[in-house]
Amino acid sequence: MIIENISEVKDIILSHDNITILTHGNPDGDTLGSGAALCLGLRSLGKKANIKNSEEIPEKYKYMTNLVPNIDFEEEFVISVDVADTKLLGTSVEKEYIDRIELSIDHHGTNRLYAKNTYYEADSASCCEIIFLILKDLGVQITKDIANCIFTGCSTDTGCFKYSNVTSRTHRIAAELIDLGADAAKINEAMFDTKTFAQLKLQKLCLDRLELFADGKVSMFTITNEMSEETGCEESDFDFIVALARQIEGVCIGITVKQKADGSFKASVRTNGQYDAAQFCSSFGGGGHAKAAGCSLYCDLDTAKKQLIDKAIEMVK
Amino acid sequence: MIIENISEVKDIILSHDNITILTHGNPDGDTLGSGAALCLGLRSLGKKANIKNSEEIPEKYKYMTNLVPNIDFEEEFVISVDVADTKLLGTSVEKEYIDRIELSIDHHGTNRLYAKNTYYEADSASCCEIIFLILKDLGVQITKDIANCIFTGCSTDTGCFKYSNVTSRTHRIAAELIDLGADAAKINEAMFDTKTFAQLKLQKLCLDRLELFADGKVSMFTITNEMSEETGCEESDFDFIVALARQIEGVCIGITVKQKADGSFKASVRTNGQYDAAQFCSSFGGGGHAKAAGCSLYCDLDTAKKQLIDKAIEMVK
Repeated sequence: MIIENISEVKDIILSHDNITILTHGNPDGDTLGSGAALCLGLRSLGKKANIKNSEEIPEKYKYMTNLVPNIDFEEEFVISVDVADTKLLGTSVEKEYIDRIELSIDHHGTNRLYAKNTYYEADSASCCEIIFLILKDLGVQITKDIANCIFTGCSTDTGCFKYSNVTSRTHRIAAELIDLGADAAKINEAMFDTKTFAQLKLQKLCLDRLELFADGKVSMFTITNEMSEETGCEESDFDFIVALARQIEGVCIGITVKQKADGSFKASVRTNGQYDAAQFCSSFGGGGHAKAAGCSLYCDLDTAKKQLIDKAIEMVK
Repeated sequence: MIIENISEVKDIILSHDNITILTHGNPDGDTLGSGAALCLGLRSLGKKANIKNSEEIPEKYKYMTNLVPNIDFEEEFVISVDVADTKLLGTSVEKEYIDRIELSIDHHGTNRLYAKNTYYEADSASCCEIIFLILKDLGVQITKDIANCIFTGCSTDTGCFKYSNVTSRTHRIAAELIDLGADAAKINEAMFDTKTFAQLKLQKLCLDRLELFADGKVSMFTITNEMSEETGCEESDFDFIVALARQIEGVCIGITVKQKADGSFKASVRTNGQYDAAQFCSSFGGGGHAKAAGCSLYCDLDTAKKQLIDKAIEMVK
């Protein structure tokens, strides 16, 4: 069922306890900020809650998950945050939870309504914005820790308030969070303003290998496991390359193909809004937002690249 | 005289007409946004006003200055915006106006109080924030054009709401500007999210020539006229290199030395806040903010670099 009113979310949450909060795989600042903030908020109301993730938390986000070490309880209720599709939970978590997620809180227009109840706002810049409103509605006192988690999602999902998903509400919430003590500049610096030598090396390698198609409207970066090893980059180091692919002058669709440890490929697609990234990725079984989406390809690199390039060229024609 | 209260600024402005607004040399988004917004606001009140700049307006800022083509009148009153020192006006404008600026509106703590009256807020993230409050105080209707100019300054002087100068007021004003029709995403994309091939080439050259000192706490990029020519970069293309110098992991002071057309050098200094960039640059006759400042050096490159590096090493010791 789709929940229309945010106050109904409050009622559902208040009538349950012993809650597991699921975040999506390849966890980012928004899903972890949403999960950690909700978990802290629920605990402050005297409820038992944990967050659960299928994958290793990237180093730079651990300040959030460290705030909510797991506690013991017998799970009675399951909420997912920022998860458009159970497939995005990661294999092990998906298997365990596929048919028993009771509440999905999300900001993806592509939410597959897999949960018993779904509250989503497709025009919210981040899931954290929604979590913030729910927490206030629940009467949770927004501590500095909660403010930091919410701010992280607001900032990371908007490229530091840069993208077209930012609304005046985004800025008003950011203002409120700063007044509540959020370490805005510190978070932004950690998320956006520090380039490691590994990242600089990777950027040089990628720029040397930049491929352009369709008169420069489509760009492609390829990151092999060999390049990851050579530069020492870890998963969360690749985000800025993904962003860069689309930032290049004249590029409408920027594609970054990244080899995963198991040899398969993850494609991250960014568009200038003229073309629908979520639609692009759905052709390959993936999804996301209009300007930022992703998908996985289980074939060799040349085949993966050819499929993606062909699709992109067809799209911009 | 230092004006304590923003409403006094209103009174001074209201009692004058035929106004020239001076912006600083090497014009950036904040000085031009402040100048254009103030000019539009004054004209909407029936006053005659022009903005004046000593230098060529970079292409990407022209959408603001194009809003206020010069009109004819006999100048009676002179205001400077975002200008901490008459030296920053550029030689020709400084010569003409040095002793007759009646009102300085600024956000630099280092303002030299050269004007008859000075209103400055050193803790304002941008001069545009102050101009916005003054315009509202003057009863100016904030049009979409004015909102775009103000937003440009708010965004560019904060690295797109990223730096530690951002306050909750900055975000609240951004929210208000979006509600007033500012093309926030479009402006941010033009300012921050488009990398030209010229810039990518320059970045590669700079990364190849990166110099580190004092155990990696001090970084230096050098951009010669030869490199500018080779890459085809123009003045406003260098900002992201200046930012990058400090973004490198472990760097506390990032220095970019850029050769100017006349052969002299401009040093742009960025710090992590641990060291005072304005103090650093004041040793070389320059100035600015605690984390971002600049100065000029009239000597050969090796001497310029040596002086800057020695000073930086002394500072981080």
